[in-house]
Amino acid sequence: MQANEHSSARILLAQVVSTGDEVLNGAIIDSNAAFIAEKLMEQGLWVTRHTTVGDDADRLSELLTEIALHADIAVVTGGLGPTVDDITAEAAAAAAGVNLSENPEALASIQAFFERFSRAMNPSDAKQALLPETAAPIVNRSGTAPGFRMKIGRCTIFFLPGVPREMKEMMTERVLPEIESSHIPPDRRRVFRERQVSLFGLPEAEVNQRLDEPSRAFDGVGLGMLARFPVIIVKLFAWGSDAVEIDAKIEKAYAIVRETLGHWIISHTGETMEEALARLLTEQKATVAIAESCTGGLISDHLTNVSGSSAYFVFSAVSYANEAKIAILNVSPDTIEAHGAVSEETAREMAENIRRMAGADYGLATSGIAGPTGGTDEKPVGTICVAVAAAGRTTSKRRVLPFRDRAANKEIFAHLAMDMLRRELLAQIE
Amino acid sequence: MQANEHSSARILLAQVVSTGDEVLNGAIIDSNAAFIAEKLMEQGLWVTRHTTVGDDADRLSELLTEIALHADIAVVTGGLGPTVDDITAEAAAAAAGVNLSENPEALASIQAFFERFSRAMNPSDAKQALLPETAAPIVNRSGTAPGFRMKIGRCTIFFLPGVPREMKEMMTERVLPEIESSHIPPDRRRVFRERQVSLFGLPEAEVNQRLDEPSRAFDGVGLGMLARFPVIIVKLFAWGSDAVEIDAKIEKAYAIVRETLGHWIISHTGETMEEALARLLTEQKATVAIAESCTGGLISDHLTNVSGSSAYFVFSAVSYANEAKIAILNVSPDTIEAHGAVSEETAREMAENIRRMAGADYGLATSGIAGPTGGTDEKPVGTICVAVAAAGRTTSKRRVLPFRDRAANKEIFAHLAMDMLRRELLAQIE
Repeated sequence: MQANEHSSARILLAQVVSTGDEVLNGAIIDSNAAFIAEKLMEQGLWVTRHTTVGDDADRLSELLTEIALHADIAVVTGGLGPTVDDITAEAAAAAAGVNLSENPEALASIQAFFERFSRAMNPSDAKQALLPETAAPIVNRSGTAPGFRMKIGRCTIFFLPGVPREMKEMMTERVLPEIESSHIPPDRRRVFRERQVSLFGLPEAEVNQRLDEPSRAFDGVGLGMLARFPVIIVKLFAWGSDAVEIDAKIEKAYAIVRETLGHWIISHTGETMEEALARLLTEQKATVAIAESCTGGLISDHLTNVSGSSAYFVFSAVSYANEAKIAILNVSPDTIEAHGAVSEETAREMAENIRRMAGADYGLATSGIAGPTGGTDEKPVGTICVAVAAAGRTTSKRRVLPFRDRAANKEIFAHLAMDMLRRELLAQIE
Repeated sequence: MQANEHSSARILLAQVVSTGDEVLNGAIIDSNAAFIAEKLMEQGLWVTRHTTVGDDADRLSELLTEIALHADIAVVTGGLGPTVDDITAEAAAAAAGVNLSENPEALASIQAFFERFSRAMNPSDAKQALLPETAAPIVNRSGTAPGFRMKIGRCTIFFLPGVPREMKEMMTERVLPEIESSHIPPDRRRVFRERQVSLFGLPEAEVNQRLDEPSRAFDGVGLGMLARFPVIIVKLFAWGSDAVEIDAKIEKAYAIVRETLGHWIISHTGETMEEALARLLTEQKATVAIAESCTGGLISDHLTNVSGSSAYFVFSAVSYANEAKIAILNVSPDTIEAHGAVSEETAREMAENIRRMAGADYGLATSGIAGPTGGTDEKPVGTICVAVAAAGRTTSKRRVLPFRDRAANKEIFAHLAMDMLRRELLAQIE
């Protein structure tokens, strides 16, 4: 993501730091940094780096000293608790060249927390009130460890707990308002707007290539791309002083994207495939039943992830075994004999039969080979047949995908089938 | 996670770098760094930092120059693709002070990838063969972008694609063996052993608390905890020079864990719930059919994620609507009338009927309220009824969980049901 305005020297530079051996060693995946970076960026700051270090006061102090030379604002999470591993306050004091001292305000907030939940305070909990002497505490309403803010060099650094719920609350209620009021002059406060467009069916590289030329006509709107396999999200975003004006610019950029990518677009509001289907099925008051083979229940799982899906999702059957296809779904043994279970013919019968059995408006079926084993020369791993049955009309298609990974294949197969239904539903209103 | 041996000055220092605006700006959460750090740590390296920077050649080059001063080994992911945002090779060349040139080996591997899948190569794909002239390519068997390895200063840096599947394959098959053979002298090679124990049914804080006291008896074995919602993985790990000796220590630690956590343990080899079920069903040559309501296909999806599941997974039906439960699954309208669709009675009939319909050894059924809407005072969101039917015996239970999140509820509901089947299968062999 690039936006021209970011090249301006007036943009505040920000860095994000996560601390903790568990994060550093890969035992837990850090989602705090992503949240913080997104919020800072929305406020118009330019986030240049995230760094993760372990529970090691020397290394953290070294890092804070480096950051103080390069950033205007930094947010550090983790290491504020009561245990010996919690070394953040010590590292911050060392980087700033000041001492630690018991902060009365921080101590009072820790005591208040324990009183509120009628819990006994351990002596180690008081350690959390030992802050660098130049620090100002930040109240933590949902946990025991207070945060704090202090200057190191020219950089204002906010220190928050690593517990995501506590961090998010303090970030939203305390840190962001303070950055806005103390660090961004009124004439530089900017509005952030973003639109997400979801696509299915084109590889990311091709989306990129197709948009390369047209996006040069965007007027101050940034273009980002985000893979939510197998869906791709194109992001259009801009900052500005006037919301109406930037909304209009983003709308113009979207018109260009729509002209370029047309029917590959699932949604111009960033919906998932199942959300787009939910919208279309609800609008048309239509219902659907599904016969899944190789997708193993994944289509049904996706559709029922949408709250309210009981209005259009009637029934689905997952039949792996040919016997079940024949006995329960009434697929003709002759069809399977003549064309194989993985064939458009079998998928069509599955779609038609499930539609009839369940009394639904649409029947959707999949049959294929997700792998990693089970492929043949004629029908390699990655082969997928999908069919959609509607009143008096069944359509089907066959594709061979290059993946050998079972989970990846199931996911693309499921999306191919859902996309086929989506196009069928769109054809009704065009 | 800490191991004393890491304090030795002879340990190789490593750093991990993730690149990409999407990661930096919080649009996607980086799981690559955790994987890489864990693997490097297992090999006995000391990972001191992760850093994330955007798609900005100058900032990446600056970072690589810093890393070259501090680390022996670094692994960088992302930015190797064909688009203009892919600036990693350029940044690496700049940091090393060399030129980019087309690497014939890399070009051949890209061409081979396209030939294998009979796809046309775009001119932009050839850009991926432009590597720093001192770099040696690392073949990517699962994608188009080759990786590469080069020295910058005293540091050997491995550059891998950001696509997790490709990165993991290249890390495991190429990077780790090379670090072992080229960077770790034979007398310093240490064995890392880890055992993962999967648990279901206890909150993480409680697992922690229950293990706190017993784990003090571990002899040189580290204890880690990892949440793979709703499953918790307890990790037991140790380094040493003698594999037999550390295996014995880990085995002793595991005996303590088993004594403490007993039947909450799904697997002593870190299996997922569906893998544990696959093992038990295969051992017992048993088959299963599933009638899902509130889980919406998620149980079927989980079971069919295991390759070879067609041996035991016969059929499943997802019936949201009462009409479908009655017409297709033959649940008695009187049962639904008397007890409601969300009741142990309805779940029992669903389990018994699907077992009979599909001719399976076991029938498994769920009925509940995943939310966020649809709850009542009597049956709030989070209510789940599960039943397992076997020959001549059906068991059922009802639970009310505190979550309001639809996806979280579906996942726990599915695991509760699978765990009930697991306990039923275990009872057969005890």
